[in-house]
Amino acid sequence: MSDVPATMKALEVRAYGARPENLVLAERPVPRPGPGQVLVRIAAAPVNPSDLMFVRGLYGFRKELPAIPGFEGSGTVVAAGRGLMARILLGRRVACAAVDPGSPGGTWAEYLVTSAQTVVPLGRSVDQEQAAMMLVNPLSAWAMMEIARQGRHRAVIQTAAASALGRMIVRLGRRFSLPVINVVRRDEQAEELQALGAEHTVVSTDAAFDRQLTLMARRLRATLAFDAVAGDITRRVLDAMPRGGQALVYGGLSLEAAQVNPAALIFEGKRVCGFWLSEWLRGKTLLDRFLLSRQVQGMLAGDLQSHVQARLALEAGAQALEQYAQNMGAGKVLFVPSMRGT
Amino acid sequence: MSDVPATMKALEVRAYGARPENLVLAERPVPRPGPGQVLVRIAAAPVNPSDLMFVRGLYGFRKELPAIPGFEGSGTVVAAGRGLMARILLGRRVACAAVDPGSPGGTWAEYLVTSAQTVVPLGRSVDQEQAAMMLVNPLSAWAMMEIARQGRHRAVIQTAAASALGRMIVRLGRRFSLPVINVVRRDEQAEELQALGAEHTVVSTDAAFDRQLTLMARRLRATLAFDAVAGDITRRVLDAMPRGGQALVYGGLSLEAAQVNPAALIFEGKRVCGFWLSEWLRGKTLLDRFLLSRQVQGMLAGDLQSHVQARLALEAGAQALEQYAQNMGAGKVLFVPSMRGT
Repeated sequence: MSDVPATMKALEVRAYGARPENLVLAERPVPRPGPGQVLVRIAAAPVNPSDLMFVRGLYGFRKELPAIPGFEGSGTVVAAGRGLMARILLGRRVACAAVDPGSPGGTWAEYLVTSAQTVVPLGRSVDQEQAAMMLVNPLSAWAMMEIARQGRHRAVIQTAAASALGRMIVRLGRRFSLPVINVVRRDEQAEELQALGAEHTVVSTDAAFDRQLTLMARRLRATLAFDAVAGDITRRVLDAMPRGGQALVYGGLSLEAAQVNPAALIFEGKRVCGFWLSEWLRGKTLLDRFLLSRQVQGMLAGDLQSHVQARLALEAGAQALEQYAQNMGAGKVLFVPSMRGT
Repeated sequence: MSDVPATMKALEVRAYGARPENLVLAERPVPRPGPGQVLVRIAAAPVNPSDLMFVRGLYGFRKELPAIPGFEGSGTVVAAGRGLMARILLGRRVACAAVDPGSPGGTWAEYLVTSAQTVVPLGRSVDQEQAAMMLVNPLSAWAMMEIARQGRHRAVIQTAAASALGRMIVRLGRRFSLPVINVVRRDEQAEELQALGAEHTVVSTDAAFDRQLTLMARRLRATLAFDAVAGDITRRVLDAMPRGGQALVYGGLSLEAAQVNPAALIFEGKRVCGFWLSEWLRGKTLLDRFLLSRQVQGMLAGDLQSHVQARLALEAGAQALEQYAQNMGAGKVLFVPSMRGT
């Protein structure tokens, strides 16, 4: 811990909600790694939709306040507690996560203490910034495509297809030759996805949307949908699908309840369930997770690449969240704690 | 076919929709049974919620118009086409159904032609009227309770608990010692159910409803809900359930889309699917169905009894539907074709 300072800058949630003043830049003591833990100097940490949900108090769990938000990031292990695993990691570049509801730590800070078991050592060629965004979107995209392949679905539908995760699904669909029907809200987004190689794209604000989606879904036999939006689009997607269609809701960007047509459930055997990466990973062995992280790292410069719209200092605080929320399609907003804010 | 007249009275749907003039009393030729078919002289036929849905064009399938509605009934086999099964049934009292989308026949008529395989011969002691209501509610109640027991659910929740089917679920819950949490809309309904022996009842219009339901559902570990209503009550029931809770939607009495909180799907592993008796029966062997019909017949005078609020002639037509729709809780409305209307 020789070159580790005594205090650090960190963003803190003081109260849950959407008000900018709930997120405050604070000076905090640098936490010390306990047994089996490591201290990571954060290089970069993204703002994800799940972070917005957490800050608003709408995520799957709440932490005791004040808490540092930021579910994922990357950096270098600069100190280790007792234990072999922790010590092996010393000096290594890693991707890390802060998803333990019992810990107040998060990645929107200069340092994070976390369990050595949950950090992912990075290969030499892996980009530090891309690695910061590796655990949420790329893993989720990979997991959902694995669900589609294991369920032997002939094709899938996805909403919010122009999002970072949506673009990964588009590329993975090409890689696995699994047709993806992409639902977007605007014509420009459809064009962007087509430039990326998307073959099947529908715009939900078009008058012909429901008819087009139904035709595509039935022709391609799309019996699985990845839905990040909820609200009325869930109903429209489910209604468009052939018998037995299933919606996997993994986000609630509309901030509305998912709508479901009872007749689709009763007479067409359709179903709605949810996807949560944490829960999906819980079903995997340590070896599975290791192999998975290798596979995903190998694709971070390719199919699982994230586009960055802005790199900001921690001082940007709530403005960074605002910038991201206003235009998610433009790419990720990254906190870079080594940058000095205004 | 000696004592069978050439023509019969039947109610006909001329156009789908809720307008009374869409349902017309008509004089029609009495259909003749083909090979493997029987002609049933209808003794009684109920109005069910599924019939209301069919007449409005909202059911799982539509028939070519004009079509005779009425999905179930009972009567006597008065003529048989070629084939052993059909001839054996001649003269027998049976319960019968008209759920073939390709056939224009229905039970709201003096006669029905149907496949000999789909009629259920009645035991000597079985009441003709109760048998007319045997195939929809008692079988559905039985099937859903079987789903609950096979899924090893510790308790269940049901909406529209004061309905005919709801009361059967209450009685079956007692028989199988499976706690049932009953959701009703009015205090009087709660009292009626308590008189029936219901132990756990909540009124959805109460201010404390969500809190009460949550406490009950978590204490009793109710991880399955039977929902006949959809709309916002689906969301409230799902939110009240413990992790992994599942809603089985079998009706849409609210005529609204089912609402589902995305967070419940994502973070709590909750699910929504549908139940359709026709589909459930498709998964059963002929022997299973035979045993099932024996079991259900044996309970028609007890746990699976239906209460009748009115017996009407076919001439009552749309008025009968209106009377039933206005007050489903008062009991079933039965068409009795042998009655002469005004």
